[in-house]
Amino acid sequence: MENSDIIHTFLHPKSVAVIGASKKLAKGGFRITTNLITNNFKGKVYLVNPNAKGNLYNLEFKKSILDIEDDIDIAIFYVPNRFIPHLLEECIEKGVKGAIIEASGFEEVGSKGLELKKKLIEITDNFTKIRILGPNCMGLSTFIGDSDSEQKEAFFSGFGPFSTFKRGNIGLISQSGMLNGGYLMHIMTQYPHLGFRYSCSIGNKTDISELEFLEYMLSDDTVNVIAIYLESFKDPRKFIELCKKAKSMPNKTIILLRGGVTSQGQKATRSHTGSMAENARLIQGIIKQSGVIYVNNFYELFQFARSFSIMYKTGQAFPKKGNVSFLAGSGGAGTLIADLTMIHGLKLPILHDKTYSVLVEVFPEWMPPNRFAFVDIWPAMEKAMMRREKPEVVLSRVYKALIEDPNVEGIFNMLFCSKQFNALNDIDELIKVAEKSPKPFYFWLVGEAKEVQRISDQLGKHNILDFPSLEDMVKNFKTLVQNSNNFIN
Amino acid sequence: MENSDIIHTFLHPKSVAVIGASKKLAKGGFRITTNLITNNFKGKVYLVNPNAKGNLYNLEFKKSILDIEDDIDIAIFYVPNRFIPHLLEECIEKGVKGAIIEASGFEEVGSKGLELKKKLIEITDNFTKIRILGPNCMGLSTFIGDSDSEQKEAFFSGFGPFSTFKRGNIGLISQSGMLNGGYLMHIMTQYPHLGFRYSCSIGNKTDISELEFLEYMLSDDTVNVIAIYLESFKDPRKFIELCKKAKSMPNKTIILLRGGVTSQGQKATRSHTGSMAENARLIQGIIKQSGVIYVNNFYELFQFARSFSIMYKTGQAFPKKGNVSFLAGSGGAGTLIADLTMIHGLKLPILHDKTYSVLVEVFPEWMPPNRFAFVDIWPAMEKAMMRREKPEVVLSRVYKALIEDPNVEGIFNMLFCSKQFNALNDIDELIKVAEKSPKPFYFWLVGEAKEVQRISDQLGKHNILDFPSLEDMVKNFKTLVQNSNNFIN
Repeated sequence: MENSDIIHTFLHPKSVAVIGASKKLAKGGFRITTNLITNNFKGKVYLVNPNAKGNLYNLEFKKSILDIEDDIDIAIFYVPNRFIPHLLEECIEKGVKGAIIEASGFEEVGSKGLELKKKLIEITDNFTKIRILGPNCMGLSTFIGDSDSEQKEAFFSGFGPFSTFKRGNIGLISQSGMLNGGYLMHIMTQYPHLGFRYSCSIGNKTDISELEFLEYMLSDDTVNVIAIYLESFKDPRKFIELCKKAKSMPNKTIILLRGGVTSQGQKATRSHTGSMAENARLIQGIIKQSGVIYVNNFYELFQFARSFSIMYKTGQAFPKKGNVSFLAGSGGAGTLIADLTMIHGLKLPILHDKTYSVLVEVFPEWMPPNRFAFVDIWPAMEKAMMRREKPEVVLSRVYKALIEDPNVEGIFNMLFCSKQFNALNDIDELIKVAEKSPKPFYFWLVGEAKEVQRISDQLGKHNILDFPSLEDMVKNFKTLVQNSNNFIN
Repeated sequence: MENSDIIHTFLHPKSVAVIGASKKLAKGGFRITTNLITNNFKGKVYLVNPNAKGNLYNLEFKKSILDIEDDIDIAIFYVPNRFIPHLLEECIEKGVKGAIIEASGFEEVGSKGLELKKKLIEITDNFTKIRILGPNCMGLSTFIGDSDSEQKEAFFSGFGPFSTFKRGNIGLISQSGMLNGGYLMHIMTQYPHLGFRYSCSIGNKTDISELEFLEYMLSDDTVNVIAIYLESFKDPRKFIELCKKAKSMPNKTIILLRGGVTSQGQKATRSHTGSMAENARLIQGIIKQSGVIYVNNFYELFQFARSFSIMYKTGQAFPKKGNVSFLAGSGGAGTLIADLTMIHGLKLPILHDKTYSVLVEVFPEWMPPNRFAFVDIWPAMEKAMMRREKPEVVLSRVYKALIEDPNVEGIFNMLFCSKQFNALNDIDELIKVAEKSPKPFYFWLVGEAKEVQRISDQLGKHNILDFPSLEDMVKNFKTLVQNSNNFIN
């Protein structure tokens, strides 16, 4: 079986068996079954548990996988690891194509676990008789239709409860199951409009690794952004090769977080996935050669993934020079953004004559506008209020001028959010302009926390991003420029 | 009048006059009056506006400050700047001690504004006849009693609407009015249990500057943490002297953010507060000599202030070596925290024998615990569930062991928040242990956004901090160590 075929089967199975399915609410086998059924997985689902009686979701429990008449694509194991060798032999006998093993307790726990791993290799004849994902993983997820729509559908094989999701263009490959479970849920509920396509937890990657999924996602047009967390490289040469291939493609961005880059981190890694220490310099070399976007923590991994996701989704132009403009009602924020952009290699360029002439019109005489791309909009707001003009009309004019300015590649906007300041809260008008921007249009929302949350949701609905700090805005824009520069080289 | 006396009068006036008070809702003079009255300012309030008729909040409008019979401590100006010289002369005649001038349009707008500034100096005889705060500022705030209590009381002289606050031990001195207004509101609504004592907006600091407020806060026992944003140093020598003095005091920490440290930032600064460019090296030298905690953006300024605030409020011990432990249900998070701590100069030390023996008891045989201070608690949770023990009982035991461990100076804890995972959601038990910790006890909450918010609020109520990322936890703990190290030197 070709790599792409077996990975396709793992991510889009036609039939699955949950080995260790259970009616007990606290059991992983119950939650896996629940995730499959309640998220409208369209493949066939079979439950295997010799000790369970009766039905679950109208499905009968089978004593053994051998009792199932249909063909089974994928077996999802949630059983104590001592039972795995025998059950795996049955799967091979049944002709199951792949097994997802979520239990831990293999090489990461020392000699006893290593023996178990050896047994897996023996039984599967070095993974030729059946392919294995894991062990020590959180399974795979494929998001097919948004959870809040009538098309709700997902294949979700992990044991963490999952019910809210949007389908999108991000593929996740992670050696930490937490990223595929709790953290993904965190991101999906924090940014309810951010969509994912796949979430692949590779665990100890005894057989299938990051490489097979990466290769698959490069050839899958539904994925634009591939976010990866690794504690070891299965095959650095192959990894670099795939990353370089991605860079020659116009619709793919790889973002990598590598755990275990320090000696202290490697100590922790060993007890986690049993990964062997890799030389820190070697790791740096691999990252550099691969040319991927490299990040330092989970937070940045998902923030950057979000930024790239929106670029591909909206078709906005990637900035090439790092020329950004900043619109704010605060001189202090302007000073800091000027510092931060310069520190991070971005520029506040000189505005085009046309933009400047718009600013001169909306600014009062006693407080003329800047020529460079920091627009302290407060005086213009005051002038508008004195003339009884709507502030959002003035803001929209300035937005449009900045969007059309050939010297500007992106727009940062600080927005004050307050129920009491109603004038600035009717932001439908502003969203209309911002969502049409062919350049990245980022918001920094300041004010009452509840209003900030409300407006952030509204922006998200229209594919407009907001960030919790000026520095986050700068870093996220910078990474777009880096991607673009890499692209040219 | 001594510096401390005049600053005391500015921050705790017995009587104020709002010059430019208005009944029109959109006017700053209306909002200032509203802020004073609705926040229960206990001093006397007088309204001055020759064009206004009738009453506002049962207060009569006076044509001129000279029509008021009582003595006036502070006049708060909200009028176009061309009227200021004449009105200021009247204040001097009346014997007003200080004036807060919020209007902009002085040296930051060029020659016309410079003339106006000269006039202020002439009229006040170089600020000997009356002291001036601003111009181009957002006024002063003193928080006296929490807004959600019967003791609700604040002196709030800014024109941004303000209604929610907690009194605490943080004093803010800022050259960006946005920090004293919208951003402070943002922080206060985002962290509703975080308290402030003063918020001082110094604007162009034509007369009174950061120095007078800093000196005052050093001698005011209600302030422990002084957060400062500056675009220029009024007198570097004096600033360094005061910062050094703070370092010899056991209950003061100064955190500084400096805007305009790059050439691009200085360009923005000039158009903001009219500050003259300072040599970047000189700035670095001043920061270094002052020995303050230095930060790079607004976000960090308030995050660090929050961390120090809690240290003083709870009396927790400052870490000296940077030895921290991490408790998580995720090996990946453990690997990353191990990397991040090492990168930032912290350590995951070897646990004390007593702690280790507790871990050995709660961990299953097939997955023994680490000796070093990363505790992947998941196997212990599984064991607990198999034995039908409450997970929070096991967690509490581990918390207590870590808190008592002499090798550990602080505890980081990742907590999964989900309505469906009820077992881990009854966190009252955990809070009981964590809030008694004599060492910093930080949470990283992961899971459903609403649950994260709910638990974050609960933690905040008990003076326990949570952070949005692992890196934030590490950086905030590190800054406590830096403070402690500075302290020793």
